[in-house]
Amino acid sequence: MRVATRFLLFCALSLAVEAQRFVRFISTDGHEYTGDAILRAGTFDASKSTSARVIVGDILGNFTITKQVKPIRKLLSPLPNERVRTVRCVGFNYVAHNGEAGQPIPGWPILFFKPFTALNTPSDPIPVTAGYQTQGNFTSTMDYETELVIVIKKKAFNISDDEALDHVLGFSVGHDVSHRGWQVDRGGQPQPQFSMGKGADGWAPWGPAIVSTNIIPDPQTLNIWTKVNGVTMQNDTTANMIFGVKHLVSFFSMGITLLPGDVIFTGTPAGVNLGKANPVWLTDGDVVEVGLENVGTCTNMIKYV
Amino acid sequence: MRVATRFLLFCALSLAVEAQRFVRFISTDGHEYTGDAILRAGTFDASKSTSARVIVGDILGNFTITKQVKPIRKLLSPLPNERVRTVRCVGFNYVAHNGEAGQPIPGWPILFFKPFTALNTPSDPIPVTAGYQTQGNFTSTMDYETELVIVIKKKAFNISDDEALDHVLGFSVGHDVSHRGWQVDRGGQPQPQFSMGKGADGWAPWGPAIVSTNIIPDPQTLNIWTKVNGVTMQNDTTANMIFGVKHLVSFFSMGITLLPGDVIFTGTPAGVNLGKANPVWLTDGDVVEVGLENVGTCTNMIKYV
Repeated sequence: MRVATRFLLFCALSLAVEAQRFVRFISTDGHEYTGDAILRAGTFDASKSTSARVIVGDILGNFTITKQVKPIRKLLSPLPNERVRTVRCVGFNYVAHNGEAGQPIPGWPILFFKPFTALNTPSDPIPVTAGYQTQGNFTSTMDYETELVIVIKKKAFNISDDEALDHVLGFSVGHDVSHRGWQVDRGGQPQPQFSMGKGADGWAPWGPAIVSTNIIPDPQTLNIWTKVNGVTMQNDTTANMIFGVKHLVSFFSMGITLLPGDVIFTGTPAGVNLGKANPVWLTDGDVVEVGLENVGTCTNMIKYV
Repeated sequence: MRVATRFLLFCALSLAVEAQRFVRFISTDGHEYTGDAILRAGTFDASKSTSARVIVGDILGNFTITKQVKPIRKLLSPLPNERVRTVRCVGFNYVAHNGEAGQPIPGWPILFFKPFTALNTPSDPIPVTAGYQTQGNFTSTMDYETELVIVIKKKAFNISDDEALDHVLGFSVGHDVSHRGWQVDRGGQPQPQFSMGKGADGWAPWGPAIVSTNIIPDPQTLNIWTKVNGVTMQNDTTANMIFGVKHLVSFFSMGITLLPGDVIFTGTPAGVNLGKANPVWLTDGDVVEVGLENVGTCTNMIKYV
């Protein structure tokens, strides 16, 4: 092999290992790119990045991180909605949250789904249509839930906890927007199903990047928080998850095929309005920041439409 | 326009109106086709059809029913899994079923999801992997649920009941295979989420055809039944649905985009094992037939794998 070829191959391999914070973005040329976010000094938050190295190929398959750097005009969700086939969510997965909501510690992970049409970017408004706004006897009971999000990169079926991370591309932070009235009170008593109160279009912002397992080999050590209009409302660590990432991936693959691009929202810590004596429900114009250490933030405004 | 052209156009339009029982099948030439099933005399059940007129195009968009007739070797599910983006399911939607299960009449439809990977053909086995078989203290509590299935053909968002059927391609019959242990007891007490007990690969057989709204203008008049190993276990009419087809489509579009190819399983009538004093859970080798008048049957065997 010629020296030049070997050198190029070496560069390609070096760059491939460097793959870290996968973003999808519109650049100043108006085109959409996939990239590896270049962090600004002093922050791990890709939502503050102004440029990224362009990635060629498919981050769920084979790809190359090129040396081409493009400015970021707007970050999109890390995968297009069409690539996310299934959005799994976990209920009651932090000890203190279960306490505030009057729920016991479950023996097994609690699974529900959002439709993929709920996915949203890390910065666009969260639309609230008439059916979810206060009307007649119904009070709008919009609540925030910040969650670590797992992104599957490799098909998984009946895998063990130990195998789980081999099937994971990385981690994002997500906002499981929740309308407690439609989720619980009108979700079907005495066994409410949560989907209707969490599934509206745009009610699952996520991003700003998918941070690879190279950077986060242990997802159970991360600070996780929420700010509403700048005030901290949730502040915990993923160490307090009842079922950790490895077990969730393994459990949800029990007789079930998980596919590349599937995402799993892993439950929220304490500090939501649900269960509070004096809840302050989200309303038109409120700005919610959801954050995860070493991953970044999504900041979206509640917008009555 | 020349007479011959006008004649061909007339034929094409006449045939288009004839579109009735959409099937997808493997023919004797080993290839896959979409077709309009030709019923055998004396039955409305496309699963008994031996041939179909070949359809060219997309049944969710523009298509033509040709005069070419192909033999059916095997019926597949009416749409490939990849075309079904979202599988919505309704809980507790028949008065007598709610009674047997100890559930009140809900004020609003109860929504949960299956992953699209649960979809299955009208004839293939329903696989039951180790996690759902009896083991240790866990009893396998596999149950049947026969349901009318709605297929969306046109994007819907915040539509009214009156507009609903304009967005519907037609109706199928589906089997909402359910493991009561994972659905209820281990789904998260006191508010179990149903998805884990209903979402395994192959746990949603459907078909044998999508029967168009031309043939079934009123879906609330159809006999619906289940036979287990030839014995009738459920036998009711869709007239007893608490929330009918029109309202389900409209309600699920509340701030939510329904897409062409989305399917909605509309709940099951009385007669399931859940709530019975002496349930006879499904086990390896049991054959379940789910049937809907004017639509047909799916017949699948429970198979421990």
